[in-house]
Amino acid sequence: MDLWFSEYHSKDVKFSVRIEKQLYSGKSDFQRIDVFETKELGKFFTLDGYIMITEKDEFIYHDMIVHVPMATNPSIENVLVIGAGDGGTVRELTRYNSIKKIDMVEIDKLVVDVCKEYFPNSTSGLDDSRVSLYYEDGLKFISEKVKEYDLIIVDSTDPIGPGEGLFTSEFYKNCYNALKINGILVNQHESPFYPEYARLMQRSHKRIKEFFPISKVYQVHIPTYASGHWLFGFASKTFDPVSDLDADRWNSLGLVTRYYNTDIHKGAFAIPNYVKELLEKS
Amino acid sequence: MDLWFSEYHSKDVKFSVRIEKQLYSGKSDFQRIDVFETKELGKFFTLDGYIMITEKDEFIYHDMIVHVPMATNPSIENVLVIGAGDGGTVRELTRYNSIKKIDMVEIDKLVVDVCKEYFPNSTSGLDDSRVSLYYEDGLKFISEKVKEYDLIIVDSTDPIGPGEGLFTSEFYKNCYNALKINGILVNQHESPFYPEYARLMQRSHKRIKEFFPISKVYQVHIPTYASGHWLFGFASKTFDPVSDLDADRWNSLGLVTRYYNTDIHKGAFAIPNYVKELLEKS
Repeated sequence: MDLWFSEYHSKDVKFSVRIEKQLYSGKSDFQRIDVFETKELGKFFTLDGYIMITEKDEFIYHDMIVHVPMATNPSIENVLVIGAGDGGTVRELTRYNSIKKIDMVEIDKLVVDVCKEYFPNSTSGLDDSRVSLYYEDGLKFISEKVKEYDLIIVDSTDPIGPGEGLFTSEFYKNCYNALKINGILVNQHESPFYPEYARLMQRSHKRIKEFFPISKVYQVHIPTYASGHWLFGFASKTFDPVSDLDADRWNSLGLVTRYYNTDIHKGAFAIPNYVKELLEKS
Repeated sequence: MDLWFSEYHSKDVKFSVRIEKQLYSGKSDFQRIDVFETKELGKFFTLDGYIMITEKDEFIYHDMIVHVPMATNPSIENVLVIGAGDGGTVRELTRYNSIKKIDMVEIDKLVVDVCKEYFPNSTSGLDDSRVSLYYEDGLKFISEKVKEYDLIIVDSTDPIGPGEGLFTSEFYKNCYNALKINGILVNQHESPFYPEYARLMQRSHKRIKEFFPISKVYQVHIPTYASGHWLFGFASKTFDPVSDLDADRWNSLGLVTRYYNTDIHKGAFAIPNYVKELLEKS
């Protein structure tokens, strides 16, 4: 048996993983879902053929999408998570006793059901009493909210298929309106290296900075995503993610993390010149 | 025509690039050398089947292996470069007027000859009058030097084949002896994510810190190397790469770089917890 899964990172570059066996394949109203078992990456799942999380490196993505905003503003109590059907983002959020309420809006119930079965570690926070799970369109859900959240995390697929609305100007404007005066928006922000992804990164940045006075990106090493060089967007009404970080305060919480630390929090906002230029041109 | 080059990043993960055509294939006394043309990555070359540089991202590697030590100590005058047959490291070094002498020791003349033909941008510094090129074994060359260099850059292949001696304790000890009192050693330090590479990273770190009072690693996003998460080692007798950086001074030089800047210099030394743990265990 010589079975390989491949994902194209550009038209001419692909990343392939040897598969032990396929564990699941299904189709929802929104997308195709597949789960695979591998020796190198543990289990992973794909949506429409794109890797979402692998057991080996999901901690990197979830550490960096959650702990960066949480360490910047320790007073965050009400959080909205959009997408994130694998549960990893909510799992990290539930580690903070200071959080009172987490609304998670995932359009595709099947993603959550499949992840509950195959990725119990990732979904372990979904039963927390502070979590309300809505199987709805995030774009519609947020349009009805005004000054309700301290933090919005957009943990979406790429802007192709069901994730598309989560990269529009209208959506970012609604995020701005749904946030309180000290609100923070963090979103998965694509990648700078391959042109197909870089265009999405530029477009997202351009749209977010129209609405938010503070709009930065930070970078993370995620080996199973295109180029391994992934970005998150940090936008806010008041908080600066570097100068407002109180490292001692976050470290006093005693949270054990495998990627995040307060040094890498600051370091991640230092980005290469070629990425800066792409963002400035956007 | 559907021609692909593949490199295994672990036994079960591979990275593939669509090839327009093969431009060169040859064999030296030390290794096999191949040059390919692609649409996505420009030209690239391999040694024994491993990607060395691609036109698209070689600037990242060379920026970070050169400008980090040069910005840390602006008084560097005498430099030894080991390996680096593609010329990119010397090209970046020759941009500093303050450097008086660069000895480059590459065991394989054919690598330099092939790169001169196919990568003229990369090799453009080799004709600089300050450069002396030695086609010798770096391990032997350095064993005869005492307190001669301000900076040694080990820009080697992985420790398999001709690069193997450049990862031994004996070699690092000789580097220590060949450096002046303020000397700095920078080496390519492999990668933390896939176990085969992580073991090499751990071993290299363990050996270097036996000899150097200051021994750190810093990380770089190099998309065409295994996992995209690459490390360099920074070891020195006196200089700390973060606290001794004078950003204003380096910025006043006016060097234009596409990856390096003084913020990323500092940020690159902030490494993830899982990498720290691997290094501490080494």
